[in-house]
Amino acid sequence: MAEIIEPRLLKGFRDYGPQEQAARQAMFAKIQGVFERFGFLPMSTPALEYKEILMGKYGEDEKLIYSFKDNGGRDVAMRYDLTVPLARYVAQNRGQLTLPFKRYQIAPVWRADNPQKGRLREFYQCDIDAVGGPSPVSDAEVIVCMCKAVEAVGITNYQLRLNDRSIFDLLSSLFLAAGASVDEGKEVMRALDKVGKIGKMGAVKILEEKNVSEGAIKQAQMLMDLGEGEQALANIEQNLSKDSWAVANLRTLLALVKAQGVAEKNIVFDPLIMRGLDYYTGVVFEIILPDKPEFGSIMGGGRYDNLVDQFSDQSLPAVGGSIGIDRLYDAMVDQGLVEAEGLVKALVVNLDEQLMEDYVKLVTGLRAAGINSEMYYQPVKLDKQFKYAESKGIEYAVIMGPDEKAKGAAQLKNLKTREQAEVPLSELAGKLK
Amino acid sequence: MAEIIEPRLLKGFRDYGPQEQAARQAMFAKIQGVFERFGFLPMSTPALEYKEILMGKYGEDEKLIYSFKDNGGRDVAMRYDLTVPLARYVAQNRGQLTLPFKRYQIAPVWRADNPQKGRLREFYQCDIDAVGGPSPVSDAEVIVCMCKAVEAVGITNYQLRLNDRSIFDLLSSLFLAAGASVDEGKEVMRALDKVGKIGKMGAVKILEEKNVSEGAIKQAQMLMDLGEGEQALANIEQNLSKDSWAVANLRTLLALVKAQGVAEKNIVFDPLIMRGLDYYTGVVFEIILPDKPEFGSIMGGGRYDNLVDQFSDQSLPAVGGSIGIDRLYDAMVDQGLVEAEGLVKALVVNLDEQLMEDYVKLVTGLRAAGINSEMYYQPVKLDKQFKYAESKGIEYAVIMGPDEKAKGAAQLKNLKTREQAEVPLSELAGKLK
Repeated sequence: MAEIIEPRLLKGFRDYGPQEQAARQAMFAKIQGVFERFGFLPMSTPALEYKEILMGKYGEDEKLIYSFKDNGGRDVAMRYDLTVPLARYVAQNRGQLTLPFKRYQIAPVWRADNPQKGRLREFYQCDIDAVGGPSPVSDAEVIVCMCKAVEAVGITNYQLRLNDRSIFDLLSSLFLAAGASVDEGKEVMRALDKVGKIGKMGAVKILEEKNVSEGAIKQAQMLMDLGEGEQALANIEQNLSKDSWAVANLRTLLALVKAQGVAEKNIVFDPLIMRGLDYYTGVVFEIILPDKPEFGSIMGGGRYDNLVDQFSDQSLPAVGGSIGIDRLYDAMVDQGLVEAEGLVKALVVNLDEQLMEDYVKLVTGLRAAGINSEMYYQPVKLDKQFKYAESKGIEYAVIMGPDEKAKGAAQLKNLKTREQAEVPLSELAGKLK
Repeated sequence: MAEIIEPRLLKGFRDYGPQEQAARQAMFAKIQGVFERFGFLPMSTPALEYKEILMGKYGEDEKLIYSFKDNGGRDVAMRYDLTVPLARYVAQNRGQLTLPFKRYQIAPVWRADNPQKGRLREFYQCDIDAVGGPSPVSDAEVIVCMCKAVEAVGITNYQLRLNDRSIFDLLSSLFLAAGASVDEGKEVMRALDKVGKIGKMGAVKILEEKNVSEGAIKQAQMLMDLGEGEQALANIEQNLSKDSWAVANLRTLLALVKAQGVAEKNIVFDPLIMRGLDYYTGVVFEIILPDKPEFGSIMGGGRYDNLVDQFSDQSLPAVGGSIGIDRLYDAMVDQGLVEAEGLVKALVVNLDEQLMEDYVKLVTGLRAAGINSEMYYQPVKLDKQFKYAESKGIEYAVIMGPDEKAKGAAQLKNLKTREQAEVPLSELAGKLK
């Protein structure tokens, strides 16, 4: 006899059993529905790509890519996100695509990250991107679509925080004007990007450790005191740059987002968020849950007009966002927002081997009427059959013994309320609908 | 500037663009609906497993597994099918599971197969399994569920071909009784399994090449002449084994399958199919498309009562089946059975920068009413906007210039029929629904 192998999972990977997976699939379906409502169409790319396709795109995080030599000696890699495969696809099929190209993709990605930090090595991303669309109209569409997707899964209290590269450039130029070096300016902006996590004091501490000049630190403190939202915009306009087109652009974008039904209370301009300085070229945005700040951003994105630059000598502008569904799911479980989805409506109870044919007929009829249902396989104790139903969240038991059969009826039992009533077989499907 | 990398796909891997992916997702949704109608619940396991979990399960095909050392030096492998991960899950969570455990999983698997033969290296499987369910009731349920899934995607002409290990054992015993060796018996059965592909003559040729004795070849020819369906059953009963419980069992199973609404014309008993001698322990079945035999079986499965044997010292019976969705999809495309899914209903045409706010309001209203719709980003030529709509299969254009705006109306144009009518804005969503 073969040796018994211990059944175990790799660290950072998860199984999702029926209850969890049903809830996750319901979330996917809602998000997908919103994506399609906004005119994004589905697309699918492979899990494996040539390694060179993924290299040079993720900076230091490149070491987190799962890569290996396949049987043919090719260097291959598992996709790290859905954006680089999109860029590869767009560059490869450019001649056939009608622009703007609006696609969504919901798929797992793999990162050999540190599971000790609670990071998964396999997780799903829900991405939308509008390739070839202009700013700020397509920016606003992507942002609104993401907010609506988050609302669709049942989140009411969220904050869309956004900023723009041009605001960053404006603030940076103030540093240079104040005599700071370009490097110092970058250090400051990087530290400011972390204020949400480590606080203002923490950011100052980092800058002191990096030996940033006192003047630059003062400027940084001033920026941290800009505040957020309308106050920050007004501060920038009044104190820093009177006729800023950067601020005007942002105001246009904010108006477009509000006009499409994102509540004003959910939108916050935050001059300190940057989300990858080397990547985004315009608006950057993220969604956080004020009730669960520890989960960080559950959605992030921005405009990157360099999407296909590494695959083509003709640039294409793009804007996109990505929902981290596993983080969102965990946050929702934590808030008690995930309801168990009872996918199966009825269990035809098996009381009697002799009535097998009748049970088969019954369950076949229910299924033909579109009712998710099943028949217990064997005539075991009722108790065991009810426990089975309960474990699957089945709502109703259909009970038919010889007496009911003679009457052409069955007992319909609500397994939650324990109420029970006799129902003619001809009315059963109707009642269960 | 960075070097430009050629955007290309690995051989054996595919992108699915919006039209194809929309059609595939619609297929997945239909299949998922049927699985749930039969009381199977979703489950998800990771793409990567410890390599040892997958080893020793696939015989010679083991060399097709994508495996590598991860960053931590662990031997890992990409899942080769959905059955072994299920077995691992069941063994690992046995204490928490209520039996029978009925789950479905729709997910990609990876095999480093030969793409020259038209085989994909990444393809989706749609699996159901009933673990801990008895034969033949749960066998029949799995078989019927698979037939209904195939019907649900639009296939009417299919053949469910099935056999049982006990029939195979019965026929084998005849060989032994006729003086053939055990090895010869196996060679014969393996050759018979190929008759569907290579014909009777081909099978005989193989046996001759393998130096199987003339007596055994004669028996093989007799078996090939058993025919199929009722004729084969009658032949076995009358000529080979008068009181065969194997035949009686099969008759019970066939009756259960028919009673659940699979048309008799679609069911064929085939004493020659085996689908993996070393794996299945009871019924084996497959679905082929008589109109497209070159696509082979689009679904296959059977009973394997050794499911968890390599992970546990307590056996568990199981029966399951798997739809190869990519093969099925290709066969359906070939038959013209795949319709383009028009996911987006309406395009709000952009005629005038000055009306931007109105367009935004319009599209926001349509979306709030649940209508998949979008607004063209810029006021470019009408022609270009119509072409865009056509490329996405959008049905209607909503056209509003200053005149229509003044009237509180818009032109609603059917892009297929080219019919156009003025509709008050208040009635627009209703008309589009």
